[in-house]
Amino acid sequence: MNGDRLIEILESYKKGEIDQESALDVLKDLPFKDLGYASLDNHRALRVGYPEVIYCSGKSDEQLRGIFSYFLTQESSILGTRASREQFDAVQDLSPELVYEPISRTITATRGERKKIGDSYIAVVTAGTSDIPVAEEAAVTAEFFGSRVERIYDVGVAGIHRLFSRIELIRGAKVIIVAAGMEGALASVVGGLVNSPVIAVPTSVGYGASFNGLSALLTMLNSCASGISVVNIDNGFGAAYQADMINRL
Amino acid sequence: MNGDRLIEILESYKKGEIDQESALDVLKDLPFKDLGYASLDNHRALRVGYPEVIYCSGKSDEQLRGIFSYFLTQESSILGTRASREQFDAVQDLSPELVYEPISRTITATRGERKKIGDSYIAVVTAGTSDIPVAEEAAVTAEFFGSRVERIYDVGVAGIHRLFSRIELIRGAKVIIVAAGMEGALASVVGGLVNSPVIAVPTSVGYGASFNGLSALLTMLNSCASGISVVNIDNGFGAAYQADMINRL
Amino acid sequence: MNGDRLIEILESYKKGEIDQESALDVLKDLPFKDLGYASLDNHRALRVGYPEVIYCSGKSDEQLRGIFSYFLTQESSILGTRASREQFDAVQDLSPELVYEPISRTITATRGERKKIGDSYIAVVTAGTSDIPVAEEAAVTAEFFGSRVERIYDVGVAGIHRLFSRIELIRGAKVIIVAAGMEGALASVVGGLVNSPVIAVPTSVGYGASFNGLSALLTMLNSCASGISVVNIDNGFGAAYQADMINRL
Amino acid sequence: MNGDRLIEILESYKKGEIDQESALDVLKDLPFKDLGYASLDNHRALRVGYPEVIYCSGKSDEQLRGIFSYFLTQESSILGTRASREQFDAVQDLSPELVYEPISRTITATRGERKKIGDSYIAVVTAGTSDIPVAEEAAVTAEFFGSRVERIYDVGVAGIHRLFSRIELIRGAKVIIVAAGMEGALASVVGGLVNSPVIAVPTSVGYGASFNGLSALLTMLNSCASGISVVNIDNGFGAAYQADMINRL
Amino acid sequence: MNGDRLIEILESYKKGEIDQESALDVLKDLPFKDLGYASLDNHRALRVGYPEVIYCSGKSDEQLRGIFSYFLTQESSILGTRASREQFDAVQDLSPELVYEPISRTITATRGERKKIGDSYIAVVTAGTSDIPVAEEAAVTAEFFGSRVERIYDVGVAGIHRLFSRIELIRGAKVIIVAAGMEGALASVVGGLVNSPVIAVPTSVGYGASFNGLSALLTMLNSCASGISVVNIDNGFGAAYQADMINRL
Amino acid sequence: MNGDRLIEILESYKKGEIDQESALDVLKDLPFKDLGYASLDNHRALRVGYPEVIYCSGKSDEQLRGIFSYFLTQESSILGTRASREQFDAVQDLSPELVYEPISRTITATRGERKKIGDSYIAVVTAGTSDIPVAEEAAVTAEFFGSRVERIYDVGVAGIHRLFSRIELIRGAKVIIVAAGMEGALASVVGGLVNSPVIAVPTSVGYGASFNGLSALLTMLNSCASGISVVNIDNGFGAAYQADMINRL
Amino acid sequence: MNGDRLIEILESYKKGEIDQESALDVLKDLPFKDLGYASLDNHRALRVGYPEVIYCSGKSDEQLRGIFSYFLTQESSILGTRASREQFDAVQDLSPELVYEPISRTITATRGERKKIGDSYIAVVTAGTSDIPVAEEAAVTAEFFGSRVERIYDVGVAGIHRLFSRIELIRGAKVIIVAAGMEGALASVVGGLVNSPVIAVPTSVGYGASFNGLSALLTMLNSCASGISVVNIDNGFGAAYQADMINRL
Amino acid sequence: MNGDRLIEILESYKKGEIDQESALDVLKDLPFKDLGYASLDNHRALRVGYPEVIYCSGKSDEQLRGIFSYFLTQESSILGTRASREQFDAVQDLSPELVYEPISRTITATRGERKKIGDSYIAVVTAGTSDIPVAEEAAVTAEFFGSRVERIYDVGVAGIHRLFSRIELIRGAKVIIVAAGMEGALASVVGGLVNSPVIAVPTSVGYGASFNGLSALLTMLNSCASGISVVNIDNGFGAAYQADMINRL
Repeated sequence: MNGDRLIEILESYKKGEIDQESALDVLKDLPFKDLGYASLDNHRALRVGYPEVIYCSGKSDEQLRGIFSYFLTQESSILGTRASREQFDAVQDLSPELVYEPISRTITATRGERKKIGDSYIAVVTAGTSDIPVAEEAAVTAEFFGSRVERIYDVGVAGIHRLFSRIELIRGAKVIIVAAGMEGALASVVGGLVNSPVIAVPTSVGYGASFNGLSALLTMLNSCASGISVVNIDNGFGAAYQADMINRL
Repeated sequence: MNGDRLIEILESYKKGEIDQESALDVLKDLPFKDLGYASLDNHRALRVGYPEVIYCSGKSDEQLRGIFSYFLTQESSILGTRASREQFDAVQDLSPELVYEPISRTITATRGERKKIGDSYIAVVTAGTSDIPVAEEAAVTAEFFGSRVERIYDVGVAGIHRLFSRIELIRGAKVIIVAAGMEGALASVVGGLVNSPVIAVPTSVGYGASFNGLSALLTMLNSCASGISVVNIDNGFGAAYQADMINRL
Repeated sequence: MNGDRLIEILESYKKGEIDQESALDVLKDLPFKDLGYASLDNHRALRVGYPEVIYCSGKSDEQLRGIFSYFLTQESSILGTRASREQFDAVQDLSPELVYEPISRTITATRGERKKIGDSYIAVVTAGTSDIPVAEEAAVTAEFFGSRVERIYDVGVAGIHRLFSRIELIRGAKVIIVAAGMEGALASVVGGLVNSPVIAVPTSVGYGASFNGLSALLTMLNSCASGISVVNIDNGFGAAYQADMINRL
Repeated sequence: MNGDRLIEILESYKKGEIDQESALDVLKDLPFKDLGYASLDNHRALRVGYPEVIYCSGKSDEQLRGIFSYFLTQESSILGTRASREQFDAVQDLSPELVYEPISRTITATRGERKKIGDSYIAVVTAGTSDIPVAEEAAVTAEFFGSRVERIYDVGVAGIHRLFSRIELIRGAKVIIVAAGMEGALASVVGGLVNSPVIAVPTSVGYGASFNGLSALLTMLNSCASGISVVNIDNGFGAAYQADMINRL
Repeated sequence: MNGDRLIEILESYKKGEIDQESALDVLKDLPFKDLGYASLDNHRALRVGYPEVIYCSGKSDEQLRGIFSYFLTQESSILGTRASREQFDAVQDLSPELVYEPISRTITATRGERKKIGDSYIAVVTAGTSDIPVAEEAAVTAEFFGSRVERIYDVGVAGIHRLFSRIELIRGAKVIIVAAGMEGALASVVGGLVNSPVIAVPTSVGYGASFNGLSALLTMLNSCASGISVVNIDNGFGAAYQADMINRL
Repeated sequence: MNGDRLIEILESYKKGEIDQESALDVLKDLPFKDLGYASLDNHRALRVGYPEVIYCSGKSDEQLRGIFSYFLTQESSILGTRASREQFDAVQDLSPELVYEPISRTITATRGERKKIGDSYIAVVTAGTSDIPVAEEAAVTAEFFGSRVERIYDVGVAGIHRLFSRIELIRGAKVIIVAAGMEGALASVVGGLVNSPVIAVPTSVGYGASFNGLSALLTMLNSCASGISVVNIDNGFGAAYQADMINRL
Repeated sequence: MNGDRLIEILESYKKGEIDQESALDVLKDLPFKDLGYASLDNHRALRVGYPEVIYCSGKSDEQLRGIFSYFLTQESSILGTRASREQFDAVQDLSPELVYEPISRTITATRGERKKIGDSYIAVVTAGTSDIPVAEEAAVTAEFFGSRVERIYDVGVAGIHRLFSRIELIRGAKVIIVAAGMEGALASVVGGLVNSPVIAVPTSVGYGASFNGLSALLTMLNSCASGISVVNIDNGFGAAYQADMINRL
Repeated sequence: MNGDRLIEILESYKKGEIDQESALDVLKDLPFKDLGYASLDNHRALRVGYPEVIYCSGKSDEQLRGIFSYFLTQESSILGTRASREQFDAVQDLSPELVYEPISRTITATRGERKKIGDSYIAVVTAGTSDIPVAEEAAVTAEFFGSRVERIYDVGVAGIHRLFSRIELIRGAKVIIVAAGMEGALASVVGGLVNSPVIAVPTSVGYGASFNGLSALLTMLNSCASGISVVNIDNGFGAAYQADMINRL
């Protein structure tokens, strides 16, 4: 489309339908529009059927209503992350398509058929029960983007046999998301047992010297196991976004 | 092989060649040996021809000589990271195969033919000139593992046109490594312009409030662009390890 | 005036209207009174028509009523920053001149005609929607001080084309305020594209390793682009104060 | 020129001298080249005669020789910052124009006549003697860019009378740079006494809980005086860059 | 008394009134009882009429009722610090002597005549209005201990003339308490102008990079002025305690 | 039992009751099941009658009901830690065995007779009254595990005679838990006076520069007295767990 | 002895051999002497044959010579920790008994026969090769105190099979010391696999976001496995001291 | 003198010896000169015979020579702090009066007779041997200012009996300086045993989580004992300065 438009302008100018100044004017802006056109939101939406993503936290009800309203007029699916129930209440009446999941704190509107990815899947693993909300944000996001997800929850290192009993399922994944709070050691242990990329998500689960996830974050960054990269504390969405990218390769 | 050995023991026992106690003794250890057998170093070495990796920093000359000597008796290629020239001097005489590259601070011994990966490549991008040692650690590592690497150096956001002039090369990569110190903004900007996974490496380049790479690390963890994950400060090796994993998918 | 008063005292003494001790007494205090007289609040108010500024946060309703009451007896315009609606409710009845703007959290009373500055303007730029309250504190403050303001909101680096499409407006500003949270990379990118001073305002927008704005603060302090200085996290007022100073040059 | 080139291509295409594909190809790249053309280094150098700046710290002697050699073939003046004497020794033979100043740690090559700015000047103020190297980096940089500089050193708040005795010189400046380590209170005190923008430079001078300049940095960011912005610890160059920008307004 | 008791036991033993074992038993405990007897609370209370002090924060209503009830049966005056109004409500009915002051958040019961200290006084100085609660905790505490207090509030360095106009009153103090938040520069400035010991109290007033008083704390610890020592953030009580000690010398 | 099972499988295979593939399949999993079988929860429960422990904080009411319901079907005693009263209200109806203690914030269900440990006891010592909730979590946990506990509360170093008057009781303990907030000095002082292992628990009691327990944590980690180890801030449970382990030796 | 001396004084006084004043004088000091007598150094040395311990780091050669000279006149064994070879050179000539071990950085003088502890042993486990110096400080210390030590080195979680292959040896220990740097996850994994107390020693091994051991320290403090306590970074001595205490129970 | 000069100018003007403009000119500067004249350095030197103080660290040899040369032309005694032996070597030849003490790292020149203070003394107490350099900086400084000093070294809480055996000497002091590193608990213990003001000096002695004195600093700021204030890490000079001030009261 972008290319088409450029051609169209060139042709119009050649035919004398627009004068040099007008062509110049449009073309001067093109780069930015081109860049814009190549931006994640639109381009990706067209190509791979990605839903539009709205980071709800910190936005006013009014702002959310405006943004959801606009996207509802579009054809893409919609994903709202970090949405409180109050925020969902504020937009719910805009469309019956909007669905709220309280654990992942997501608002979703699924439209059309998402292009599924083959047989490969993403393993989403948690150390404990309290890490599940972050893991669910990841799982819901990845599924929304079209990936298959296998959930392996509460297999932290305090009872490492739980991890081993499910290790084959984890090893079978094309990419693995590990969400863990407190000391976050699970990411290293998983990393040492698999051959797939591991995306580690530190969670803010813990107290005292966990410093709201800092402890788990540092653990994961310093992992002695190779093949691990890290996203922000509690950033289930970010982990899923990259995992889905990798899952498509 | 592991499975073969297990079968062998079972058969020996069945045939009465070994008694129950002996079988029990071996089998009791098997799980751990199995796990050991499935460990990254050996398993991966066999399957994908990964070089053995030695983290040289903090090891004594004596220890390094011992480790290199052992690996030189093996068939795999060898990669030593974070090696000072003094450390190389201490092992150099062990084999003419050992090569030192001072910028990446790597010692390598290439043996046999590494299994090359198809046409895809890893883009290694730096914000500045001072980030190059970290980038080279990544590039050398990735090449050693068999990936093709394209280097795009010194394209930081202070002169963003330099980035744009090479953006197509970056966009063509299957996975992108961005090494940046100081404020580390380049990772976000690249992340906003591409559709491939970005592995961000904060570097300790900077002074004052860069706090030895903390500033760049936080920047990268908080990136508003999606599809970015982060490794430890100056961890070019770790970024390359995961990038190579992804490049093989 | 200060000089006048000094002359007056000298003359009085010379004429014998006041004795040595009295003159001494007054003169001993003069420096401090002189300094006092030259203080920002009063001096500046007289000279450039600056509104009185009240930092409302942390003040009791009683204290605020006392301060607003006093300033309302003066002729200057009044600006109250970081005011909650409850605080506005507590002072609203003091005068119909008092106006509350909930996004910028400002209470204002405009009196007389503010001396406008020529054609130049301040660009107030934000990375995201959530940075707008801080940006509005800056914009309202700058307008109150007499500067023209152009608002360019939600042009963060995740979709950098949005920034480019408005870059001319930003480049046209005499001084630019960039408010950004999360990783705060926008300040560096803008700084690399313009020739005007950039005042960067880190915002506390973000979560996890944003550490309430610390991440954006460090990013901005370490910017590899030149011409950028930084104010405290969420300090829209402070950025506008200095920007207005520069805009008057 | 950029505009000219765009016109030229359009004309060539209209005339049929280049086919659609070629025009398309060139135009697709234009934005980035346009952006490149608008980059600070070149554009600014042409317009205001800014010297090229090389951040020497962390660059190898070889790299420095390469960069200096290139710039010496150009016509602009050259400024190398954070250069050790060893680094100067490594490049000194490239040209007799290169001069090293050990306190500011700058290498300079002055070529042609820099466009001087009118009568206005920048005041560079330090709290103590140990802050002078940072202040000199600022002063040398600002003078190199064409600003007049007045140095007011060692007037910290422990003996505040020293500040007051020189306050008129400080007040007369168009913009003020204050460099202070330890508790960094001088910036606030100066900020409370003047009507010009103050750019505060925390220095790493101090010990113990100064945490290498963190204490002064926080002090300056939290200043209760208005009109103050802050640059990185020890970043005399950055302060001077923005101060010069403001001094030209 | 302690000495007397020791003599008494020795005599009893000599006279055979108590056997060796008993004497041994008592004597073995004596050190601790002696030390106990010399403890601040009781010893000081007897000697200098210090009120008993109860740190109320974090204590349950039940605990507070128990502690206040006990002390009310004693003769000393009572000072409860960091008491919420709810806590006062929970103990108020124990005695009509109990008085609550909401700004300093103190509960007091004054009994008998406190031994006043001569003519000397403690100056309690604040940078801003928001620092007053901490200053009042100091002032109320010091007065309770028998010191005369002069309050000099809102004389921060942003309008330094306010400080100078009251400097004689400050200089006249035997010891000075300076409470300041944000950048906390006032302590250094006062310290540079007086010859008396300054006890600096950082307050948690501020936002963003004030990090709840950390900025002011570091400023005060790094003061370039001599004669300043520091207490914990918001610790008005602690400053007053030491100031009263010094005022008695 | 684990060993028995292994033998059983070997025998079945030898006898031809199961084929090679089945034996292989089971044996391949054995390590993990073995490891699982040796996990803390089950193994320890069988051997030493440890209660099951549920960390309640951050779990939903639904999750807690599920977990408590399951454990109530088992025979072990149950200990829920960091339980709010609301959480207890949510599970209370599951069984009359469940008891809530508000100070320690524990939910307990005692079943059968816990195997008591001989005469030795654990001393639980606090510096102040506000540390008691953490100490009670430790005391209740240790008693639940079968240890005898002696409580010595409010003997902090500000009135060190209180400590000395009870030192014999402390010295008599087999292991000592010291809970202290603020500066946490009590652990060092106790450590210098006893010959038993001291487990130090920093508490979040304090304000300002206590940074929610960080100050006490660092104090305890840096103790100049030997024989002290440290657990997480406010982690009374963890201290009691290890203390009980030691008490059983 | 202490008791004896007290009796002796009482008797002397009773017999009139010393007068009241003299008795009083001695008894007044007794408590402190009693406390002194109960101090670790002397009391423990007598009772359990503990070597005297000298923390060498930061002491001048002269001071070390004085301290070693004194202890060499005593009968106890001597242990000097954190001793550089230069420091050993400075004291070596004092006695042929002094022995230096460069990896543990200990100076020892073994005298008499240390009272061995029964069959139990302490397991000293490291994650990597670089953690060995800290582990050796622990092992040498524990052996010196009379404990048997089993060393299990380089069994970190990156190749977890190495740990499993030696788990029985670890499980057999009465108390376990785990030394690990980088992310420090090994302590949690070991803690989840054993029933003995684990004393975790974070080491400063690592780079970047390991922040000199902070990462491992936080990991260990936040361990989700129970039964783990922590000592200071690199504090092998402290871990061994407590481990030996426990091993004697 | 200051007053005298003011009178003189007034008289000259009255007599017509100087015209209005000249008087005005001088008087305009007077406040600052007055303030300057009242500055610590000169005023105090005159009044109480304080030595001039030079903070040597970070000053160049040339600067030190200049400053010492100037002060040697004056009559006051001179104290240089934080001076390396190299720095002393650089100034030694300026005068035979200059004396270097390597432990306290002070350069002194004693001239005339310092006004001694009566019988009272300052107790300088250290926890360990390694804190002595900081303590000596304090002791030398206090003695230089004319205070009597009693040194009580190496009485830390690990062997608290050492403290008790010298407590009377400590209690007899008018003001107490406590220097302690590692966990810094000594300040709290001393504070709980005395009735005099305690000035606590955290030292950088320690390793690991002492974070170069941060641990001791936080301990001292959070002391539960009253009457303690704190100076910067290793700031023996600052503690002595305030202690001497208090000792003179």
